[in-house]
Amino acid sequence: MESLTEELLGSGWLKELPPQPGHMGRPARLFSFHATGDYVLGIDIGSYSIRAAVADLDGTVVASRTERVSADAGRSVRLTAVRATAVEALASAEVGSAQLATVCVGTTGVVSHDGRVKRCVGLPEWDGLDLAGELGADFDCPVLVENDCNLAALTEGWIGEAQGVDDVAFVLSGVRTGAGLLIGGRVHRGRGGAAGEIGALPLLGWHRATSHLTGYPKMPADILPQEAAEYVFAQARTGEPAARWAVEQYAHDLAEGIAALVLALDPELVVIGGGVSRSGDVLLEPLRRHLDPLCLEPPALAVSTLSDQAVVLGAVRLALDHVDARLYDVDTMLPEPSS
Amino acid sequence: MESLTEELLGSGWLKELPPQPGHMGRPARLFSFHATGDYVLGIDIGSYSIRAAVADLDGTVVASRTERVSADAGRSVRLTAVRATAVEALASAEVGSAQLATVCVGTTGVVSHDGRVKRCVGLPEWDGLDLAGELGADFDCPVLVENDCNLAALTEGWIGEAQGVDDVAFVLSGVRTGAGLLIGGRVHRGRGGAAGEIGALPLLGWHRATSHLTGYPKMPADILPQEAAEYVFAQARTGEPAARWAVEQYAHDLAEGIAALVLALDPELVVIGGGVSRSGDVLLEPLRRHLDPLCLEPPALAVSTLSDQAVVLGAVRLALDHVDARLYDVDTMLPEPSS
Repeated sequence: MESLTEELLGSGWLKELPPQPGHMGRPARLFSFHATGDYVLGIDIGSYSIRAAVADLDGTVVASRTERVSADAGRSVRLTAVRATAVEALASAEVGSAQLATVCVGTTGVVSHDGRVKRCVGLPEWDGLDLAGELGADFDCPVLVENDCNLAALTEGWIGEAQGVDDVAFVLSGVRTGAGLLIGGRVHRGRGGAAGEIGALPLLGWHRATSHLTGYPKMPADILPQEAAEYVFAQARTGEPAARWAVEQYAHDLAEGIAALVLALDPELVVIGGGVSRSGDVLLEPLRRHLDPLCLEPPALAVSTLSDQAVVLGAVRLALDHVDARLYDVDTMLPEPSS
Repeated sequence: MESLTEELLGSGWLKELPPQPGHMGRPARLFSFHATGDYVLGIDIGSYSIRAAVADLDGTVVASRTERVSADAGRSVRLTAVRATAVEALASAEVGSAQLATVCVGTTGVVSHDGRVKRCVGLPEWDGLDLAGELGADFDCPVLVENDCNLAALTEGWIGEAQGVDDVAFVLSGVRTGAGLLIGGRVHRGRGGAAGEIGALPLLGWHRATSHLTGYPKMPADILPQEAAEYVFAQARTGEPAARWAVEQYAHDLAEGIAALVLALDPELVVIGGGVSRSGDVLLEPLRRHLDPLCLEPPALAVSTLSDQAVVLGAVRLALDHVDARLYDVDTMLPEPSS
């Protein structure tokens, strides 16, 4: 047994894993078959842009690409842009798709366990799309699909504001406002992938929150829709009254949904991410002012520094987690050695 | 080593534990010191009654007592009633307090990790009470304090509607309306023990929900406050229009808070418990009618059959869990046997 194992190790067919902690007695040597690729691909499908990042199995991003897409783009145009961005990122990384261990795709909407977009109001013709099926045909490796807020929350726990924090409510606010939850350090998806969808409750303000920014009455005609929020925050920073009022109303409505998450879960930390996180200096004061009276105790609040990279990096992270899980799956199928 | 172990086992100083699953090789024999009592005591401190139950370490209740208390009773009177009810239950069980391994007390309000009632609007002079300290002086064993909704949720997972279900939102509605959450089968307390406090958000209806029942305009003068809700449901069952309208408004307001929990967590199951659970036949239809349109998908909904026993049994369960955890603590301090 030992000599065969050494031979397979030498040939690269087997790979030795670190011993598992907590076992009594002499630690068993653990092996897995070296049957996975050496890279993962993360993709973020947004309203205005598609991002793709190629990373090695240590999580180091070796290449990334961002391509613009029209917010009006339908299913076919958007999927074409997704594929093109992925191809460009892979080419830039000089990684062939055969070298991919796992692909993970982030999208807005409620994503089922099998990678379907069950519910999506944000992207045209996206509701009901079998995204795992569509993109699964392009790759020989597993293709995962996950809600964008969940992925961004994962990134905050990995390399962002929520490192080492168990219970986190992450709020992604940009074009839309949504939430992803970490409970016990892991993404809490819920029964049907719909955890964090507090924005669907019309009694709370998330459904209208960003409209206060995009509806700013003094918006110049040449400001692109995806830059509207940042423009209003910049104006508010200068003290312009209408912009300050727009931010005030936005903070009011944002606070209602955050308060519901805080009162439901009592998380250790709330992280604000998405486009508005670039304007934390303007947003944080009015947000605190509206949020704290709605909560039993003022929650710990942080602003993400990952900006528009959080979702694509979360896709990389989830793909890496999936690779790890597969390696351990192989272990459990190995016969148990007797001591 | 073996003969010493057998001697200690024979004398009752050591106790053998079942072998732990998942270990490779020959299973190690596990022992713990038999240093705990043989019983636990669970207590439920309510507005109108105090309940106490004595159970053995298998979870079998050997005696229980319920004593009435005035809803207006202040801290000192209520604590005296708690102590008297505990003494009666122990006497009835013929268990001395030296035989107790752990005591667990359930109370309304936000309970800190060290057993203080941090926040309580339900009981007079209860806010800020160091309940663990007060009752800890009465017993030689550990005294745990937990929020009543959390305990009732635990009971549902143990012997109620939520057995085998990982993620559960439990709603306790009687004199007040509150919630306890199970996530991954365990009580989710949150950072400061305030998870499930969605009723504190005035935008949602829980703060006024039960007032529709207690404010029923045709309430006879001889109905006790704690029986008011059940009376209104009984009238609604006969079709009395004002009672049906009261139930309708109650269901409307109850649905708002439940919807927030469902949208935040996407649980596998919502369980309705507390006093109103005895009237599930009248409540469930209007509740469904108000709840489903607020959620993305109709949540699975069950009505508790444990009625007013859920909290005290949850206190028993948490005490038993605490005993188990202490036994395992002893294990981890034993030197690891080498194979």
